[in-house]
Amino acid sequence: MAAESATRITPGNALRPEDIAQAGAKPSEDIAEYALRLGDDGLILAQRLGWWISRAPELEEDVALGNIALDQLGHARSFLSYAAGAWDKTEDDLAYWRGENEFRCAQLFEQPNGDFARTIARQLIVSVYQFELYRRLQDSSDPTLAAIAAKAVKEVDYHRDHASQWVLRLALGTEESRRRMIEGLKLSWPHLEELFDQDELYARLGTVAVPPSSFRADFDAFIAAVLSEAELELPQLPQLPRASGGGRRGEHSEHLGYLLAEMQVLAREHPGASW
Amino acid sequence: MAAESATRITPGNALRPEDIAQAGAKPSEDIAEYALRLGDDGLILAQRLGWWISRAPELEEDVALGNIALDQLGHARSFLSYAAGAWDKTEDDLAYWRGENEFRCAQLFEQPNGDFARTIARQLIVSVYQFELYRRLQDSSDPTLAAIAAKAVKEVDYHRDHASQWVLRLALGTEESRRRMIEGLKLSWPHLEELFDQDELYARLGTVAVPPSSFRADFDAFIAAVLSEAELELPQLPQLPRASGGGRRGEHSEHLGYLLAEMQVLAREHPGASW
Repeated sequence: MAAESATRITPGNALRPEDIAQAGAKPSEDIAEYALRLGDDGLILAQRLGWWISRAPELEEDVALGNIALDQLGHARSFLSYAAGAWDKTEDDLAYWRGENEFRCAQLFEQPNGDFARTIARQLIVSVYQFELYRRLQDSSDPTLAAIAAKAVKEVDYHRDHASQWVLRLALGTEESRRRMIEGLKLSWPHLEELFDQDELYARLGTVAVPPSSFRADFDAFIAAVLSEAELELPQLPQLPRASGGGRRGEHSEHLGYLLAEMQVLAREHPGASW
Repeated sequence: MAAESATRITPGNALRPEDIAQAGAKPSEDIAEYALRLGDDGLILAQRLGWWISRAPELEEDVALGNIALDQLGHARSFLSYAAGAWDKTEDDLAYWRGENEFRCAQLFEQPNGDFARTIARQLIVSVYQFELYRRLQDSSDPTLAAIAAKAVKEVDYHRDHASQWVLRLALGTEESRRRMIEGLKLSWPHLEELFDQDELYARLGTVAVPPSSFRADFDAFIAAVLSEAELELPQLPQLPRASGGGRRGEHSEHLGYLLAEMQVLAREHPGASW
């Protein structure tokens, strides 16, 4: 009860995770698997971005990254609440009691923050990706996924704007900030292709899901426009070898384990405690 | 520019720190010193609470503490932007370029998070304190302080509600959660009296500031009501020896130095960089 009332602080949260949980819709296992992928992307990114709350280069940026982290966490809670219904579980069960190989985020989301420029490079890719995805997911034949996406796309639109502006500011700033921006992009790029891997789940889900191939062209065009405005040619980027990938199948980089250890320790210390 | 546009995500932020900075009001040194005290309380608390974003016992609580951290950071930015005008500085100058002994937060705000119950105990005290203070500061004869307080008091009202509810939930929960709640209160209590220390600044500021003695009775009554509902008698608490105090004069516990090191490292690594 206490925590519920606290959460109502969140403004504009029309479709709350509690509403989804209470509606008790039971998605099919395939739909739940899809919701898990999208929810884990947001959950893991939120943990990464939350780190910046005490470490950004400007107070204003502290607030901005903190807000983005909370937006991502909000989307994650909705997707995970929905997925949880398939197995009679709760969002907290899914967040705190799954092992590393049960997480379904793409590996880019779990990559370390690095310096500020590396975080911004990751933000550019994930926010353009999420924007194009959620925009189309609003028309999903699954009404719950469509409703979550309709709320999320507005917020991710800001994230995309935020990341784009920072790429310009860093790339066109000092020699040092430009060098770091290029380095950040190089570190993120090998994880880009995995976002567009399309397995058999999409064929089974039909009009419920958004196959990433459907928005690859729009994604590429937006990224190219930002890089061009930032005077970054980076012709070498697409030629960097792609990372192993496999996050959607539970295969993760070494970084996820450490992140989960921190995220799950308190809940696991007190199993079943009503806190 | 980039960061400014990102910050507009913050909802309901009628009086923005940028507005205060642009208005260019130049407070007296005494008023600036007072704004610094209030701003540093919020800034340091925000850093402490931001830590919880990846570590709360429930996803919902992650969001709630994250929102409270961002609220505190927002208040801090307003107070610091205003104070900065007295010395032709910016909020970032004050946040990132002051040494430990130039910070003016009370020591309770810099105390470690400890476990979740200890954080909640600290939240109970600081949110009741800030609520009673800001409520009265709305009537300050200084219009900028009054405007900041008018916005902040609404948010701190939620923080107070959040902390009170959690004190009840933990104290009336399991044996273990009750034990931890009591321990958390005991660790915070020695830092309570410092909040009500009243030095000569208040006499000089007159109707600009709110002397803490003016709301001590209301503070005590609210805390007593919460503890009573939580079935916590804690008669021993007021008898715990008070901690040294002195935060308002720049005398801090050993914890502040570590917190500042983390908070200031990125800005100091790139002095003057336009990021």
